Amino acid sequence: MDALTLIATVSIITAGLTIAIGSIGPALGEARAAAQALQAIAQQPDEANTITRTLFVSLAMIESTAIYCFVVAMILLFANPFWTWAIAAAAAPGTGG
Amino acid sequence: MDALTLIATVSIITAGLTIAIGSIGPALGEARAAAQALQAIAQQPDEANTITRTLFVSLAMIESTAIYCFVVAMILLFANPFWTWAIAAAAAPGTGG
Amino acid sequence: MDALTLIATVSIITAGLTIAIGSIGPALGEARAAAQALQAIAQQPDEANTITRTLFVSLAMIESTAIYCFVVAMILLFANPFWTWAIAAAAAPGTGG
Amino acid sequence: MDALTLIATVSIITAGLTIAIGSIGPALGEARAAAQALQAIAQQPDEANTITRTLFVSLAMIESTAIYCFVVAMILLFANPFWTWAIAAAAAPGTGG
Amino acid sequence: MDALTLIATVSIITAGLTIAIGSIGPALGEARAAAQALQAIAQQPDEANTITRTLFVSLAMIESTAIYCFVVAMILLFANPFWTWAIAAAAAPGTGG
Amino acid sequence: MDALTLIATVSIITAGLTIAIGSIGPALGEARAAAQALQAIAQQPDEANTITRTLFVSLAMIESTAIYCFVVAMILLFANPFWTWAIAAAAAPGTGG
Amino acid sequence: MDALTLIATVSIITAGLTIAIGSIGPALGEARAAAQALQAIAQQPDEANTITRTLFVSLAMIESTAIYCFVVAMILLFANPFWTWAIAAAAAPGTGG
Amino acid sequence: MDALTLIATVSIITAGLTIAIGSIGPALGEARAAAQALQAIAQQPDEANTITRTLFVSLAMIESTAIYCFVVAMILLFANPFWTWAIAAAAAPGTGG
Amino acid sequence: MDALTLIATVSIITAGLTIAIGSIGPALGEARAAAQALQAIAQQPDEANTITRTLFVSLAMIESTAIYCFVVAMILLFANPFWTWAIAAAAAPGTGG
Amino acid sequence: MDALTLIATVSIITAGLTIAIGSIGPALGEARAAAQALQAIAQQPDEANTITRTLFVSLAMIESTAIYCFVVAMILLFANPFWTWAIAAAAAPGTGG
Amino acid sequence: MDALTLIATVSIITAGLTIAIGSIGPALGEARAAAQALQAIAQQPDEANTITRTLFVSLAMIESTAIYCFVVAMILLFANPFWTWAIAAAAAPGTGG
Amino acid sequence: MDALTLIATVSIITAGLTIAIGSIGPALGEARAAAQALQAIAQQPDEANTITRTLFVSLAMIESTAIYCFVVAMILLFANPFWTWAIAAAAAPGTGG
Amino acid sequence: MDALTLIATVSIITAGLTIAIGSIGPALGEARAAAQALQAIAQQPDEANTITRTLFVSLAMIESTAIYCFVVAMILLFANPFWTWAIAAAAAPGTGG
Amino acid sequence: MDALTLIATVSIITAGLTIAIGSIGPALGEARAAAQALQAIAQQPDEANTITRTLFVSLAMIESTAIYCFVVAMILLFANPFWTWAIAAAAAPGTGG
Repeated sequence: MDALTLIATVSIITAGLTIAIGSIGPALGEARAAAQALQAIAQQPDEANTITRTLFVSLAMIESTAIYCFVVAMILLFANPFWTWAIAAAAAPGTGG
Repeated sequence: MDALTLIATVSIITAGLTIAIGSIGPALGEARAAAQALQAIAQQPDEANTITRTLFVSLAMIESTAIYCFVVAMILLFANPFWTWAIAAAAAPGTGG
Repeated sequence: MDALTLIATVSIITAGLTIAIGSIGPALGEARAAAQALQAIAQQPDEANTITRTLFVSLAMIESTAIYCFVVAMILLFANPFWTWAIAAAAAPGTGG
Repeated sequence: MDALTLIATVSIITAGLTIAIGSIGPALGEARAAAQALQAIAQQPDEANTITRTLFVSLAMIESTAIYCFVVAMILLFANPFWTWAIAAAAAPGTGG
Repeated sequence: MDALTLIATVSIITAGLTIAIGSIGPALGEARAAAQALQAIAQQPDEANTITRTLFVSLAMIESTAIYCFVVAMILLFANPFWTWAIAAAAAPGTGG
Repeated sequence: MDALTLIATVSIITAGLTIAIGSIGPALGEARAAAQALQAIAQQPDEANTITRTLFVSLAMIESTAIYCFVVAMILLFANPFWTWAIAAAAAPGTGG
Repeated sequence: MDALTLIATVSIITAGLTIAIGSIGPALGEARAAAQALQAIAQQPDEANTITRTLFVSLAMIESTAIYCFVVAMILLFANPFWTWAIAAAAAPGTGG
Repeated sequence: MDALTLIATVSIITAGLTIAIGSIGPALGEARAAAQALQAIAQQPDEANTITRTLFVSLAMIESTAIYCFVVAMILLFANPFWTWAIAAAAAPGTGG
Repeated sequence: MDALTLIATVSIITAGLTIAIGSIGPALGEARAAAQALQAIAQQPDEANTITRTLFVSLAMIESTAIYCFVVAMILLFANPFWTWAIAAAAAPGTGG
Repeated sequence: MDALTLIATVSIITAGLTIAIGSIGPALGEARAAAQALQAIAQQPDEANTITRTLFVSLAMIESTAIYCFVVAMILLFANPFWTWAIAAAAAPGTGG
Repeated sequence: MDALTLIATVSIITAGLTIAIGSIGPALGEARAAAQALQAIAQQPDEANTITRTLFVSLAMIESTAIYCFVVAMILLFANPFWTWAIAAAAAPGTGG
Repeated sequence: MDALTLIATVSIITAGLTIAIGSIGPALGEARAAAQALQAIAQQPDEANTITRTLFVSLAMIESTAIYCFVVAMILLFANPFWTWAIAAAAAPGTGG
Repeated sequence: MDALTLIATVSIITAGLTIAIGSIGPALGEARAAAQALQAIAQQPDEANTITRTLFVSLAMIESTAIYCFVVAMILLFANPFWTWAIAAAAAPGTGG
Repeated sequence: MDALTLIATVSIITAGLTIAIGSIGPALGEARAAAQALQAIAQQPDEANTITRTLFVSLAMIESTAIYCFVVAMILLFANPFWTWAIAAAAAPGTGG
């Protein structure tokens, strides 16, 4: 198979697996933090504000790893530098590829 | 096999696996948060409002990772940029592919 | 093997695996939430209404990930865009494929 | 091997694996919910009605994921759209396949 | 190898694996429910009737997933639609296959 | 290799794996139920009859999944429908196979 | 390789794996039941007879799954129906195989 | 490679793997039963005789699964019926093989 | 396939897998630290400042391993030294490659 | 490769793997029994003799499974019946092999 | 493929996998240490200084293993001795490679 | 590749894997026994002598399985009977191999 | 591919995997020891010196296994004896290789 | 590829994997023993000497399995008997190899 098809193929597979695998950790992690926050609120209702604020900061940091994966998947689908190069190379086959 | 068939094939497989694998983490995660919320309500019924509100915010964030996967699967099935290109290239075989 | 058979084959396999793998997480997750709800009812029978309501909202959100998988499996079996294209391309072999 | 045999083969394998893998999660999940319900009844016999009702609703939702898998397996065995197409195509080989 | 042998082969393998894999979940699940029921009886002997009745309903639902697998295995061995078709096609090779 | 040998081979392998894999779940499951029954007897010796009766009903249901596997293994070894057909087809090679 | 050697080979491999895999579950299961019985005796020495009798019945049922595997392994080694057929077929090559 | 070498090869591999895999379960199982017996003795020194007797019966039953594996491994190495046949067939190549 | 395509392909796959696998550990780790911090706040509300500060330092260190992975993925996509060399070598094929 | 080399090769691999895999279970099992014995001594110093004696009997039985593996590995290395036969067959190539 | 491309390819893959796999252990490990430190502060606020100091020393040592991996990944990408040699060998093909 | 190289290759691989895999069980097992011994000393300082003596006997038996693996690895590297034979056969190629 | 490239390739892969896999155990191990030390300080602040000293000795021994891996990885990258030999053999092709 | 390169290749891979896999068990094991020792010191500060001494003996025995692996890795890299033989055989190709 030619280079363009190959790059397209692996980009599709990698984009899907990246976000699929990359969503397991953050989903379980956010659930753990949220579950503990709910337990903490039940234990110390007077500290609900501090607990909620700390929870949101933590969720943001955990979500960041999911967003890294989503960013990479989006880059692979819509801003893939190798794909850009391959399209250009296919249009001008004499310069490379 | 030709390029169009290959891209179609890997898009189908990747779309299915992405949502299949990507639903494990959020499902288990939401269950954990919900289970803890129910325990918290049973422990502190007076804080049911705060607990339910925190639970819904958390469920939304956990669900977001499942939605990332669903979005990628839908993009692969219905708005696949590589497929669009391949269709165009097959219609004009002289320009690439 | 030709393109139509290949797309049919991978669609069958992917549809089955998607719903099979995708049912593990929600089934275990809903069980966890339900088990905790039953424990909460036994602990605070007076809050049965709040607990049951929160449980049903949670079950709905967890079930949503199973439904994502079911939707993708049904799309692959009955509304597969690549299959539609392949049928059309096979009827008019001169335009692509 | 020809297209009909291939589609028959993957349909058999996929149908079996779908229901086999898809029965693990619901079986374990229903067991967890039922076990907790039994514990709850032993803890609060007066709430047996509420507990049993909540249990049956939960079992129904968990069983739904097993039924999704069973439905897909039955569709693959007895109402497989690709098989229908392949039989038609084999009867009229000039139109596709 | 010819189509009939191939379909026979994959039917045998799939039937065996389906019931083998499909028996793990229900066996462990029924054991969990039964173990909890025994514990509940020991804890609340006066509720033995309610507990036993709830246990039997739960066992029936869990057993249903094992029966799904057994049904699929039996269908594959003794009422396989693809095998029926293949036998017919082999008897009249001019019509398909 | 010819069809008869192939069917014999996969029947042997599948029969062995089916009973081997299929014995893990029931063995662990029966052990769990039995262990809990022993604990329950130690906790409530006066309920030994109820506990033992519930245990035997549960063991029978768990054992049923092992028996499903054993039945399928025996069918594959001694009453294999595909093997019967293959023997007949080999004796009359003109009719199929 | 010829049919006889192939059947001999897979019979050897399957017999070994069947008893090897099939001994894991019963061994762990019997250990669990026995461990719980020992704990129960230590907790209620007066019920040692009931506990021991229940234990032996349970061990017998758990051992039954190991015996299923051993029986299948022995059948594969010493009473293999496919091997019997293959020997007969090799002695009279004109009738099948 | 010829039939004799192949049967010798798979016999060696299967014998080793059978006893290796088959020793994991009994070793862990016996350890569990023994550990619980030691704990029971520490808890009820007066019942040391009953506990030790029950332990030895349990160890014997657990060891039986290891012995099944050892017996099969020894049969494969020193009393392999397929090897006996292959040696005889090689000595008289006109009768089979 | 030529060198440029191969390097592009493995860069895409590796970038995706690196951030996908690399996000599991930090996500779970940050969740654990955050969950414990929430529990600690609920236990000692007066030490919320010390706990929050220690939490943020820890989160920063755990996040650093995710950032290592993100940096490597970005380097592979946008500053890949081997890709730079391959482009240069393809432009001047006489000097290497 | 010839028969002698093949048998030597698989004997080496199998001997190593047999003792390597076969040492995991006994090592963990003996550790569990020993750990429990130490705990039991700390709990009931007066029963140290009974505990130590029961421990040694248990260790001997657990060690027996490791010794089975060691025996098989040694047989494969130094008293391999198939190797003996192969050496003899190679010395007299006309009689078999 | 030529030597330069091969070395570039395996360097890319290895660098990515090294930091990806190597970040799992430290991330989980630092989280465990940090979580315990937060619990310790909540338990003994007066020892916050000692706890924090010990925590930072521990984090530094755990982080060191992540840094080992990062160093190796960076060496493979930017200071790869084999790549340096291969470039030199390609420039002077007569001396080796 | 020739017989000598093949035997050397598999001996190297098997020796390494044998000791690598074989060190996991004993290391974890000795750690468990040692950890329990330390806990027992903390619980019953007066029994330190008995505990230490029982610990050392147990460590010796657990270490024995590691030593089995080390012995096999050393035999494979320095006293390999198959290597000895292969060297002899290579020196006298007319007698076998 | 030639010998030099092959040795370079496997050295790169092995160096990366060695430090990546080898960092999991020490990272988790050091975290466990550090976490327990922090708990011990919180429990017995007066023994902080003894605890910290024992912790550092333990961390040093655990770190040693990570250092073994790092040393082997560095040897493979910068002091590889086989690479040294291969370079020498390539410079003097008549003497070996 | 020739014998020397093959032996060099497998020696590199095996040396790396041996120490990488072999460091997991000891690292985790030493951590467990050290963690328990720290807990024991916190529980019984007066027995710190006995605990520390027992800890060091245990660490030494656990470290021994890591050292076995390191020794085998070093032997494979720097004192490999098969490599020594291969070098000698390559220098005198007429005698073997």
